Amino acid sequence: MKESLHIGLVGLGCRGTFLLKDCLLPRPEIQVDAVCDVYEDRCEDAARLVRESGRPEPFTCTDYRQMLARGGLDLVMITAAWEAHVDIACASMRAGIYTAMEVGGAYSVEDCWRLVDTFEETGVPCMMMENCCYGRNELLVLNMVRQGIFGEIVHCQGGYRHDLRSEIAFGRENRHYRFRNYLNRNCENYPTHELGPIANVLNINRGNRMLSLVSVASKSAGLHDYLLREKGPEYDASSMRFAQGDVVTTIIRCAHGETICLTLDTTLPRAYSRAFHVQGTRGMYMEDNRSVFIDGKDNAYDFKWKERWNSIEEYRKEYEHPLWRDFLTEGIHGGHDGMDWLTTGALFDAVRAGAPAPIDVYDAAAWRSITALSEESISCGGAPVAIPDFTRGKWMHRSPWKP
Amino acid sequence: MKESLHIGLVGLGCRGTFLLKDCLLPRPEIQVDAVCDVYEDRCEDAARLVRESGRPEPFTCTDYRQMLARGGLDLVMITAAWEAHVDIACASMRAGIYTAMEVGGAYSVEDCWRLVDTFEETGVPCMMMENCCYGRNELLVLNMVRQGIFGEIVHCQGGYRHDLRSEIAFGRENRHYRFRNYLNRNCENYPTHELGPIANVLNINRGNRMLSLVSVASKSAGLHDYLLREKGPEYDASSMRFAQGDVVTTIIRCAHGETICLTLDTTLPRAYSRAFHVQGTRGMYMEDNRSVFIDGKDNAYDFKWKERWNSIEEYRKEYEHPLWRDFLTEGIHGGHDGMDWLTTGALFDAVRAGAPAPIDVYDAAAWRSITALSEESISCGGAPVAIPDFTRGKWMHRSPWKP
Repeated sequence: MKESLHIGLVGLGCRGTFLLKDCLLPRPEIQVDAVCDVYEDRCEDAARLVRESGRPEPFTCTDYRQMLARGGLDLVMITAAWEAHVDIACASMRAGIYTAMEVGGAYSVEDCWRLVDTFEETGVPCMMMENCCYGRNELLVLNMVRQGIFGEIVHCQGGYRHDLRSEIAFGRENRHYRFRNYLNRNCENYPTHELGPIANVLNINRGNRMLSLVSVASKSAGLHDYLLREKGPEYDASSMRFAQGDVVTTIIRCAHGETICLTLDTTLPRAYSRAFHVQGTRGMYMEDNRSVFIDGKDNAYDFKWKERWNSIEEYRKEYEHPLWRDFLTEGIHGGHDGMDWLTTGALFDAVRAGAPAPIDVYDAAAWRSITALSEESISCGGAPVAIPDFTRGKWMHRSPWKP
Repeated sequence: MKESLHIGLVGLGCRGTFLLKDCLLPRPEIQVDAVCDVYEDRCEDAARLVRESGRPEPFTCTDYRQMLARGGLDLVMITAAWEAHVDIACASMRAGIYTAMEVGGAYSVEDCWRLVDTFEETGVPCMMMENCCYGRNELLVLNMVRQGIFGEIVHCQGGYRHDLRSEIAFGRENRHYRFRNYLNRNCENYPTHELGPIANVLNINRGNRMLSLVSVASKSAGLHDYLLREKGPEYDASSMRFAQGDVVTTIIRCAHGETICLTLDTTLPRAYSRAFHVQGTRGMYMEDNRSVFIDGKDNAYDFKWKERWNSIEEYRKEYEHPLWRDFLTEGIHGGHDGMDWLTTGALFDAVRAGAPAPIDVYDAAAWRSITALSEESISCGGAPVAIPDFTRGKWMHRSPWKP
């Protein structure tokens, strides 16, 4: 087991800075040796954060290939723009360095295969850092599912329902790649925050797999209306036509007959929700009203007056996931309500132990492929599209995910 | 304006009895002259209810054609099994009698055209009695939409999410047609409770129309698990394979780019919800957490800490629909929390005035067609299916729905 870890970070925008701060927190064994971004000022800001944490000055560069060629890294973490993830991840695996990639969606199914092929050729692990797989309620629900509380799981829903209008609309000013994506593409561009936890519930790539999807996009009206109000009609983007529909709904069918309904909803006013929703033959969970419903218990009220929604809080004590029990005892820290800490913790443990990636390339490929496949389905009027088996049959005997 | 109305009812199961009781309540001008059901005992029970209300003994029969041939009716109300609605409605229109039909889904698109054609040939109105169009929150939200509170509407969701396992599983014992439907068909079999109010929000058939849909069904597991537990493995239906998936998700695209996501969810344990959900460029409403979210107001909290879900109750005073304001003043009565009273009230007023149907054959055809079209889409692996324009172009100049 390695004591200290030498890390390189590629991509130092909002997400990368979040992650860097997580690495620098109370983990003295983490050495941030190198930071890379296409923008020099971001490299400088990151280097300053590293220095301020009491660590040595990191190497900085604007081309990730310099970082890889320099050597000495135990781990490369990629938080660059979505479209750069796969190139960098494959180069990092080929350089023999344990690799971790932020969440994002694929631009082509071929890119997903490239991740899988590169991993299979090199044997170098590549983790998909889907932090929501480590979310408190996501793990609580997974725990209940695994204990059979909801019976046989039949249907799941989830969404990335997050008002990102200011980030997207002013993406040029803020150098955020969402602007160019929303201007040009129309797809389920960010499926994994909700799909990751659902895939774990349904044992996707581990006894089950996603077979096909259909995807339909609404019109694009939210950004235009927002920009007109924020900047007036003279501002150039106020009259741009964004290709991205405000709401994209995707339905996925699985090998064992389950359905998954995903919603991308990022350009209309609303409160944040991942709309996590799990239904089985014995009960269900719904994030949006924080409810658990158990057959024979909550519908017993039917005979008196009406069935009732129960609260997830009544189940927290009994079903809190062990990982979160420990985390609560030691005190929650790190970004995104602690999810980032658990994600990077799992990653660092795996790197030190030389263990497989906690969320691997097969999951990364399957989950990210939804973006490219939804683009295909939407462009063909909602036509069903097959989802490849990126495990090449190994899904039938891979064991269930363990957080 | 006619003073009293002479009514015949066809179909006296659960739904028909509900409606009959509504007719018999404090409306002395309503004369129930005839009651018809294929089961004689149901006719007798209905006749007894009519007698007990102080009205004359009604004519009873087991064949609706006898009722129509007998004459003397101002209105025929059809609450028979779904598959009988269209035959009876067309016969009633051809007999020159104002017709009203309970909610239900079509078995073929041709049946929907038959409704339209018969109306256009005879000029006799036929109402679709979609009571949820008169629901309190549905009308409150419609009122807010019409006043522009949510901005331009982009996306709606709705569902018939109602645990009907006992009704369906014991449909043979209870003579409920849902049993044979769930055993044999796989479709969005009951779309109109949620689609009616959504269609009003989106001005479907009145400046807008539904263009196409995709529909995907989950496996069927709920009824089997329920029957095994309720009746054990020896009971015949415990080993029957129900064709109907537990959860059917349907996405509809509209002429002006809006999307509608519908969910049928009737064979898994849960609390009742129509999951009504309306999103626009300035705000949204969500039934499941009883929330309203207004841009610039509720996301103002973002800067301090987090955006918040507001409660619909805060908007009730200002935006309660006038119909409900009056109803609350006079005191709510009738089935389904008063929705039935408002629906039949609108119908009776229209019949007395010789006015068009409050919800007409074009709406009936479009909404009911979703069932047949979803069956087609599901059977073709989720393929997109076109939704006919049952108005033959009149949707472009029909004026918005007025409750």
